[in-house]
Amino acid sequence: MIGGVTIIELTKRQEIIIEIVKSEGPITGEQIAEKLNLTRATLRPDLAILTMSGFLDARPRVGYFYTGKTANQLLGEHIKSLSVGEYKSIPVVIQENTSVYDAICTMFLEDIGSIFVVKKEGFLAGVVSRKDLLKAAMGKTELNSVPVSIIMSRMPNLILCRSEDSLFEAAMQMVTHQIDSLPVVRSHQTSEQEWEVIGRITKTTIVKAFVELGQAMKV
Amino acid sequence: MIGGVTIIELTKRQEIIIEIVKSEGPITGEQIAEKLNLTRATLRPDLAILTMSGFLDARPRVGYFYTGKTANQLLGEHIKSLSVGEYKSIPVVIQENTSVYDAICTMFLEDIGSIFVVKKEGFLAGVVSRKDLLKAAMGKTELNSVPVSIIMSRMPNLILCRSEDSLFEAAMQMVTHQIDSLPVVRSHQTSEQEWEVIGRITKTTIVKAFVELGQAMKV
Repeated sequence: MIGGVTIIELTKRQEIIIEIVKSEGPITGEQIAEKLNLTRATLRPDLAILTMSGFLDARPRVGYFYTGKTANQLLGEHIKSLSVGEYKSIPVVIQENTSVYDAICTMFLEDIGSIFVVKKEGFLAGVVSRKDLLKAAMGKTELNSVPVSIIMSRMPNLILCRSEDSLFEAAMQMVTHQIDSLPVVRSHQTSEQEWEVIGRITKTTIVKAFVELGQAMKV
Repeated sequence: MIGGVTIIELTKRQEIIIEIVKSEGPITGEQIAEKLNLTRATLRPDLAILTMSGFLDARPRVGYFYTGKTANQLLGEHIKSLSVGEYKSIPVVIQENTSVYDAICTMFLEDIGSIFVVKKEGFLAGVVSRKDLLKAAMGKTELNSVPVSIIMSRMPNLILCRSEDSLFEAAMQMVTHQIDSLPVVRSHQTSEQEWEVIGRITKTTIVKAFVELGQAMKV
């Protein structure tokens, strides 16, 4: 996934060149060289790096100018290229009429934070979290007889994602809506209003992706 | 945090140069140019980029050789430079003798996944998670009279981290030990065996860091 991309530490001189072009661009390579008391040839690799990395752009007979793109933007573009489809894990689903008690057992058995609830036909109906279950267990809910559909968060108030979404968007949705997981869905062929659950993205997924990025893997 | 670093997409030609140096290095710039039917001058920016990015190294009178560092390793080095101290959030703590019932209330009130439990003197004693509380609520535990210290995970079986640790290590600990949060601690000045809780790293912290890396922030 990360092949073909590289990270470079900018040198002090390259940072100074960015500053010069930012304040005085468009400016020619000769003019930059003059300001730094260096030859044009000495500067050539620096200018090549700054142009290829997207900091500067060059127009023939005009000179170099600052694109406004920052290192952060370029790193961000890379992170945004990771997709939900590459990272999603297998969803754990239960039927709408499952009791709250059985939902709690499933949660401990599978050791997960949220369970997806589906209709008889298998389409997404809701999501039940550890918090929902703790609230039910604390209240007057009759855990063995009340179905999980009574306490779940239900469609259409759920945040969903698709395989082709970026992992970055999924992470942002979890932060914005303060939720721990997102169902990965695809729309049903005959019924556009129904969603088939094909995966699961959780905060754990993102933590694993973060660790993977930090690990020194061989390409 | 990301200032002074940049990402570039390697060109096809740069990838071919890496392959040539990998299989035939050490090799001079002239020899590489000859193989590609290009002039040494044309190749100069490519070789500069590959050297600065750490793929290749050059020794005078020997030539270029492959360092074995991959793009992933270089990206990884960047991720590893983020520290726990920069990202930690404020910890939520309760006393050891707090009832399980009050711990559950605190969890809902503060909307958090884990609470840190401290001794009378304020030093870390344990961690109680949503899962621990749900288990207690389901069992025969007398929630109002049983103190949280009975059901918490306790020292020394806790995974801790320090401000100077990397966020990457903290994320790896959470994945390895399948836990949702880590207390950030510092050792007490007079008592080396005791830990003061000064922060909290959770899966949410990592998801936020991931989103931050993906966002196009201005430096």
